[in-house]
Amino acid sequence: MTDRVTRVTVLAGGVGGAKLAHGVSMLPDVDLSVVVNTGDDLELHGLSISPDVDTVLYTLAGLANAETGWGLRDETWSAHEMLGRYGAPTWFRLGDRDIATHLVRTVRLAAGATPTDVTRELAASLGVRSRILPMADRPVRTRVRTSDGWLDLQTWFVGRRHADDALEIRFEGVEDARPTAAVLEAVASADVVAFAPSNPFISIGTILALPGMTSALLDTTAPIVAVSPIVAGAAIKGPADRMFATLGGEASALGVAQHYATRHPGLLDGLVIDAADEAQAPAIERLGFVVLVTAIVMRDEADRRRLAGEMLAFARTLRPAHTLRTAPATQDPGTIARAGT
Amino acid sequence: MTDRVTRVTVLAGGVGGAKLAHGVSMLPDVDLSVVVNTGDDLELHGLSISPDVDTVLYTLAGLANAETGWGLRDETWSAHEMLGRYGAPTWFRLGDRDIATHLVRTVRLAAGATPTDVTRELAASLGVRSRILPMADRPVRTRVRTSDGWLDLQTWFVGRRHADDALEIRFEGVEDARPTAAVLEAVASADVVAFAPSNPFISIGTILALPGMTSALLDTTAPIVAVSPIVAGAAIKGPADRMFATLGGEASALGVAQHYATRHPGLLDGLVIDAADEAQAPAIERLGFVVLVTAIVMRDEADRRRLAGEMLAFARTLRPAHTLRTAPATQDPGTIARAGT
Repeated sequence: MTDRVTRVTVLAGGVGGAKLAHGVSMLPDVDLSVVVNTGDDLELHGLSISPDVDTVLYTLAGLANAETGWGLRDETWSAHEMLGRYGAPTWFRLGDRDIATHLVRTVRLAAGATPTDVTRELAASLGVRSRILPMADRPVRTRVRTSDGWLDLQTWFVGRRHADDALEIRFEGVEDARPTAAVLEAVASADVVAFAPSNPFISIGTILALPGMTSALLDTTAPIVAVSPIVAGAAIKGPADRMFATLGGEASALGVAQHYATRHPGLLDGLVIDAADEAQAPAIERLGFVVLVTAIVMRDEADRRRLAGEMLAFARTLRPAHTLRTAPATQDPGTIARAGT
Repeated sequence: MTDRVTRVTVLAGGVGGAKLAHGVSMLPDVDLSVVVNTGDDLELHGLSISPDVDTVLYTLAGLANAETGWGLRDETWSAHEMLGRYGAPTWFRLGDRDIATHLVRTVRLAAGATPTDVTRELAASLGVRSRILPMADRPVRTRVRTSDGWLDLQTWFVGRRHADDALEIRFEGVEDARPTAAVLEAVASADVVAFAPSNPFISIGTILALPGMTSALLDTTAPIVAVSPIVAGAAIKGPADRMFATLGGEASALGVAQHYATRHPGLLDGLVIDAADEAQAPAIERLGFVVLVTAIVMRDEADRRRLAGEMLAFARTLRPAHTLRTAPATQDPGTIARAGT
């Protein structure tokens, strides 16, 4: 492994996924593909906006706003202010630089390019060398049922600051969507697959809901590890902790392990959890996962790189395991052997 | 006239038209309608852009960039810079605030609103009380033939800085376009009609090329006056002077008079020319126009207001004249009597 490039494929949502992907991209001799959730996409002011893809794009380009984690640094808000004067919706704030991205995307999509094409072009323009891969080229729209009824993901998340309890999640259009050829290739050729510390329900869960995605992951010979998005019972960012309460499960590192073991059986080989949750490691191991305990909150670029390196080294120790997983590859993941203790 | 509101309808292109309209809007007891050229409209980055309408809009809203005459003050250029990084066309500079206008317009047009609707909404949002009326709701696209062939107006004007000689002008789509009902009403109900010091070929000429526009102007009982866009043999702004050389005529106040007398016979009652061109007044009068000589270069808001006031007072002195013009209103403008000496 040391004498060649390691192919790492990260499944990612927005900020947390972008940070881990950025960490991996900083490692030597790594070839990174990031499979990004597109269930959060929206149309606003006639623009095609792909928030998670853009967060990964800006982060890997070194252009992300370090304070917010999303959007661009040195951003201005002139158009936003003027849109407000016109009475246009301003609940989803679009920075001026960010609008340029959406203009280019919208024009290219209208001209017949796929989201995969557009993302590759945008990334190339910004000097990004890793592959940023929208999970699917056909639209998937995540919707959240609340006591006020079904809401678009961004209406719920941004417009109402995810204050409403999420009672149910639906991935509209997912039955007609498929992982792109580039995504399937990134999974099939990976040496390591990692689930970023992104929301298990509406980021990683959206990607895994694509028909064919789970079987592609079951078929890969790469170890699959996840980084917990929960530390000490709370989401590192966003509403994941509260979603466990309303959608089932517990907001803990163990709850994350139970979630993947139950809802996506047979996929994960290992879980990276925070030192704060070390006491849960034995219970997680009893679920069949190998556990790495380390500091998983990424406060700066050094954290990203360190965590990515530790995760990669950890995943390599799991390497023999997936022969067990892949050998009896069937459509029934329940029969598949696990890596583990 | 002094005991009621005077209805003034200004035909306008961009900067010069906006300045005169702004001057009129500052006069007491005036109800202003501005009929604006839309032949310069373009689509860029998927946005519907109406440069002359926006220049008038921003100017009447008090938001225009005083230095450039076009665009918004306190503008930022973040999206423009980012579009450049993406390799998108940047020859037509779009400010961030300006982009908001185009986003709103594009969304509303896509939803089925007319340019007239959208302009009314934008103007209301910015507190503009005058009527800003796109000349037509159907698209007209001005094209310019050069030694390199036919160019879109903006490609010629902005993209190539009108360096190529204009050998011919074409108003694409004009045969299917009509003055809007609002434009016809503004002309029919006007007490005074004014042609702004805008380009006679590609601003005023575009409006006059609309089927039905000339007869509407011939039918109005209002005096019609024009402010010369040429001072001392040069265009106040833009390529009008050079266009006389290549399209026929001479770049002078007299040339402007000859242009309107020849190409749009029977329309104008009076012409406002600059003091620098006073020597040409007798020759202009011999063409049948009453002449007002004053300072017509509008350097600041005081100039705008003064010129507008003088023009309006001048037009009122022509009031008896149009009974001559309108009495024998026929389809042959050559037979129509003229105001004048």
